[in-house]
Amino acid sequence: MKRAVVLLSGGLDSATALAIAARDGYACYALSLDYGQRHCAELVAARAVAESRHVLEHRVMRLDMGLMSGCALMDRSVAVPEDAPMEGIPVTYVPARNTIMLSLALGWAEVLDADAIYIGVNALDYSGYPDCRPAFVQAFQRLADVATKRAVEGQPIRIATPLIELSKAEIIQLGMSLGVDYSLTVSCYQADESGRACGHCDSCRLRQRGFTVAEVSDPTRYL
Amino acid sequence: MKRAVVLLSGGLDSATALAIAARDGYACYALSLDYGQRHCAELVAARAVAESRHVLEHRVMRLDMGLMSGCALMDRSVAVPEDAPMEGIPVTYVPARNTIMLSLALGWAEVLDADAIYIGVNALDYSGYPDCRPAFVQAFQRLADVATKRAVEGQPIRIATPLIELSKAEIIQLGMSLGVDYSLTVSCYQADESGRACGHCDSCRLRQRGFTVAEVSDPTRYL
Repeated sequence: MKRAVVLLSGGLDSATALAIAARDGYACYALSLDYGQRHCAELVAARAVAESRHVLEHRVMRLDMGLMSGCALMDRSVAVPEDAPMEGIPVTYVPARNTIMLSLALGWAEVLDADAIYIGVNALDYSGYPDCRPAFVQAFQRLADVATKRAVEGQPIRIATPLIELSKAEIIQLGMSLGVDYSLTVSCYQADESGRACGHCDSCRLRQRGFTVAEVSDPTRYL
Repeated sequence: MKRAVVLLSGGLDSATALAIAARDGYACYALSLDYGQRHCAELVAARAVAESRHVLEHRVMRLDMGLMSGCALMDRSVAVPEDAPMEGIPVTYVPARNTIMLSLALGWAEVLDADAIYIGVNALDYSGYPDCRPAFVQAFQRLADVATKRAVEGQPIRIATPLIELSKAEIIQLGMSLGVDYSLTVSCYQADESGRACGHCDSCRLRQRGFTVAEVSDPTRYL
């Protein structure tokens, strides 16, 4: 059975990407990153999602980086914006986060002899992050095409972005059809320890709108 | 003063890259990765080199990745080859190592508002690693050109590879002219805890040949 590494943040998108990788016939290995994010409810959610989908292995890699100070998701002195205008790059941007996560996934994929890496990036409802754009993903694929032993041997690892052109509502509809339990997922930038969402941050509002447009009842637990 | 992140392994090449970054007028921030490599004398050497060059900050990032099993540099059950033929990709290849290190450097560079990342990769005496080739570096530059907030704002971070076309002997001659103390550096794949080199592994042989061709007395401490 062919193998895939799936980047699993614990949010709605990555839970859907995991279900799609399984649908595509992959044996799935989930990778989460503990980079000191202040919403650690995310990692608890990642574990719950990984268990619910019976992944072969779920690794939470710790990265002791105080590197990322200044980002609102890392640094408690920077406020998470509520009702911020949806333009520019928000303060919730974590420097090079997807580059770092894909690089770690690339290393693990090579060790596992995996064919693909699934990542739930999304170009429509992408919150303005530079490393969620199609141009970023394409550049990472070109890097993967030369970076590894597998690539030199003619079998580069494929970066799969099944959500890249979907709206949040379309992602939810696809996930529902694949049996994703969105009550396990946490998208909120400032969820409490038990995973309850604030309902006001960018991420909460995108998610709420998604359920509304998808005409799916929102299973999110709010504060 | 403009800033650069310099990847510092503790070996001969990265010590030279650090000296070149300083010569190029950068305030230098050194980044080393503790990925459980079995030659931890490398990290001790990295600290000594960073101190000797008065870097503004030296960070050693720990990455708890049992991901890289199977590589001779990570896994004590795999022997480091001595007198192996110099062809193909050696067992000392660490999956995606330079991709991961450059990604972490990219994140830190963005936080520091640094203009450049210096890495001592070398295409001539490169030991067959896929992620030391010019094609790899070019692909990473193209990734950096789209991956960060700085890039979106028109100021992508430059990946500087000042050693890429130099032989080991040329690297040593350049480093000597810049005052690099190579006695502080450790290149051996199986150095002992005090940093003494085996003299037999690929890396030792490349280094010895370099000093011989450069007509520089070899300051390496051997077992």
